Amino acid sequence: MNFSYETLKKFCEASFAKLGFSKLESEEITDVLLLSDLYGIESHGMQRLVRYHKGIEKGLIKVDAKPEIVFETPVSAVIEGHDGMGQLNSIFAMKKAIEKAKTSGIGIVNVRNSNHFGIAGYYAKMACDAGLIGFAVTNSEAIMVPTFCRMAMLGSNPIAMSMPAEPYPFFFDASTTVVTRGKLEVYNKNGKALPEGWALDKNGHGSTDAADVLKNIVAKNGGGIMPLGGEKEQTGSHKGYGYGMLCEIFSSILSMGITSNHTHIGGKGGTCHGFAAIDPAIFGDANAIKEHLSTFLEELRNAPKADGAEKIYTHGEKEILAYADRMKNGIDVNVNTVAEMVDFCNFVGLSVEEYLGKLDLDTAKKDSSYN
Amino acid sequence: MNFSYETLKKFCEASFAKLGFSKLESEEITDVLLLSDLYGIESHGMQRLVRYHKGIEKGLIKVDAKPEIVFETPVSAVIEGHDGMGQLNSIFAMKKAIEKAKTSGIGIVNVRNSNHFGIAGYYAKMACDAGLIGFAVTNSEAIMVPTFCRMAMLGSNPIAMSMPAEPYPFFFDASTTVVTRGKLEVYNKNGKALPEGWALDKNGHGSTDAADVLKNIVAKNGGGIMPLGGEKEQTGSHKGYGYGMLCEIFSSILSMGITSNHTHIGGKGGTCHGFAAIDPAIFGDANAIKEHLSTFLEELRNAPKADGAEKIYTHGEKEILAYADRMKNGIDVNVNTVAEMVDFCNFVGLSVEEYLGKLDLDTAKKDSSYN
Repeated sequence: MNFSYETLKKFCEASFAKLGFSKLESEEITDVLLLSDLYGIESHGMQRLVRYHKGIEKGLIKVDAKPEIVFETPVSAVIEGHDGMGQLNSIFAMKKAIEKAKTSGIGIVNVRNSNHFGIAGYYAKMACDAGLIGFAVTNSEAIMVPTFCRMAMLGSNPIAMSMPAEPYPFFFDASTTVVTRGKLEVYNKNGKALPEGWALDKNGHGSTDAADVLKNIVAKNGGGIMPLGGEKEQTGSHKGYGYGMLCEIFSSILSMGITSNHTHIGGKGGTCHGFAAIDPAIFGDANAIKEHLSTFLEELRNAPKADGAEKIYTHGEKEILAYADRMKNGIDVNVNTVAEMVDFCNFVGLSVEEYLGKLDLDTAKKDSSYN
Repeated sequence: MNFSYETLKKFCEASFAKLGFSKLESEEITDVLLLSDLYGIESHGMQRLVRYHKGIEKGLIKVDAKPEIVFETPVSAVIEGHDGMGQLNSIFAMKKAIEKAKTSGIGIVNVRNSNHFGIAGYYAKMACDAGLIGFAVTNSEAIMVPTFCRMAMLGSNPIAMSMPAEPYPFFFDASTTVVTRGKLEVYNKNGKALPEGWALDKNGHGSTDAADVLKNIVAKNGGGIMPLGGEKEQTGSHKGYGYGMLCEIFSSILSMGITSNHTHIGGKGGTCHGFAAIDPAIFGDANAIKEHLSTFLEELRNAPKADGAEKIYTHGEKEILAYADRMKNGIDVNVNTVAEMVDFCNFVGLSVEEYLGKLDLDTAKKDSSYN
C-alpha cells in the first residue's frame, strides 16, 4: 500500500504525540523513522512503530526521560539516557557532538541506557548536513556470535559514516554482522531457507533454518548471526567480530554502559550509542578535501565493471536514488505494517480516515502484531 | 632457521644504518619490523627488508626525507612525508597524535606521500602503551576490487585499533580485504589453489589461481582481492568495501594525498596513513573504563565455545601468546628470507658471521630475491 511522505509524516507525528511525546519530540522521532523508509531501509522505519509502542507499554522506553550530560570536556561528553527513546537521546547527543566539532574541531559523545535508535546513518547524516564528517555506532540486543563461540555476545553493532561530497555525500551505514536480524525475519515470514554463511544454530554450526535461529536468539539458547566475514577465520570472521568490538567500545565501554550481552535482560533495555563529528577544516581547505573525495567517488563509479554487472555504486548512492523515487512516487508500506497502523489508530483514538485515508481495511487487518 | 630477537635486532639496525639511516631511525624501523615477527605476522617483518632495500634503490623511498607538518590545530595535523620511510613518518605522526591527545584529549594526524609502514597495529599500540586508545589506517597499492567492479581501486587498507585492558590490551589489526596479498603469495609459492571467496580474475569472476591474480594486480590488468564480505552483496561485500573507504578517507582524502588507485604508478609510491589517539579520560574515570573493557573481554573468552572449537580469542591474544613464545624460543625465519639477509650482508658489506652467526649458507642461498 502506497502513502505519500506527507501522509506518513502527519500520521507518525500524531502517533508519537498520542504516546505522550511533545510536538518537537514527535517530529524528531518521525524524521528518523521516515528517513529510513525514504532511503529504502523499511526494517528500521514505519514498521517499528508497534515495537516502540510495545517498548513503552513494557516500561523499556520511558516517555518522560530527558538525556542528561554526566561528563563533559570541550571534545567529548557522556550522556545518561535514562531509558528514554533512542532517537531523542541520539539527536541530542549528535547535536552536542556537532557543537563541539564546530568549536573544538572534533566532538565524540557517547550515550548509555538508551533504546533502539533507528538507522545509525541518520545521525552520521546530521553531521554531514552541517558540513562535517559524522560517525554513529550502537550496540543492541546480542545477535552476533563471535568467532569460535556458539552464543550471541555482540549486537548487530552498525557503524555509520557520512562525509560531504558532490553530487551527493559519502554515506555508509552497515551492521558488522553479515546481515541484520530483520533479514532473517523476512526469510522466516516467507518460509525460505537462509543462504549459507549467515547464521549459526545453538551449537555453533551453520544453519539455514530462520525460524530456529530467531527462536534461539530470543530464548538466548545459543546461535545467532555470523560476523561480517562469516564463520571462519579463512573468510575473515575475526574481522567482522573486531568491527563489532569497535562499536561496543565506542558505545557501551566508554560510556560505562551495558554491553550487548547484558542488554535486554530482566525488563531492562540499556542500549548504548556513540557519535562523533569531525570538521574537515582541521585538516586544511574543507572545499578542496570535499572535491578530492568527490573525484575519487566518481573514479570508483566510472571504474570498469565486472562481467555482467550493471553499475558500480558508491556508498549512499542507492539511498539518494530511493529518496528521490519515494518523495515523488510515495512510500510502499507492507500490508502487515498498515494493519498495525490501523490497529494503532483504533487503540489510541486517532481517526484512520483522517490520517491514512480510505483504506481497504479487510486487507489491512490481515496480520497485525496487535491481533 | 631460528634467530634470537637480540640477533635480529642487531642485524636489522646495522642493515638500516648501512642503507643510510641514522642510529635512531634504524632503531625505530627495526622496532616496527620485529614487533611484526614477534606477533607472528611474518609477512610484515624481517622478510620486507629486501623490498625496502629495493624501494630505496628505485628511488621510491627517500632515505634523507624528514616528515614535515604542513597543517596543524590543537587536535590535528597533516604531515607531508616527502616519500620518506613509512615507519619514520608514521612514528613521527603517531607521537604527534599522542601529544595532542595528552593535551587536548584527541589527536588525529594524517600523512601523505609516505611508503609502506609495516603493521598498522604497531602505531595503535604506541597510543595504547601511553594509556590511550590508538587507531592507525593506511592505503596502499590498489588490490581491493569494489563490489560490482573488476579493477582493483582500493588498497588492502587495514584498520588497527588498540585500547588498554587487563591482562592484555585489546589489539585489532586487520585488512579490509578478505585476505592480504601476502596470503596469495604464500599460496602461489606453494603451488596451491586459493580458497573460493578470496580473489577475482581480470573480468571480475571468482578465481582460485594465485599466480594469475598476482600477475594481474601487478600489471593492473583487472582483478584482485575481494573486500571483507566477499564478492556479493548477499555476504556483505559492500561492507568490506565501505570499511576500505573509511581508510581511504582518513589516509589519502583528508591529507590531500594520492588515493590507492593512483599510488605506485610511474615510479612514485605515495602511500598515505592516518593515526588517531584518544584519551579515555575524556569520558570519565579511565581506570574504571579499562576495567569495564577487561570484564567484557573476559566474558567473551569465557563464553560457550562452538562445537569442536578449542578457544575463543579476543583481539590481541594471539599476538601476546606469539610474542611470549618468540622472545623465549627465538624467531623462525623463512629460509628464503635468510638467503636474502645473507645476500644483503654481502651487498652492503656486513659480516654474516658477526650478525647472523655461523649459517649453513648453501641452504640459505636457495631462493634469495637478490639472485
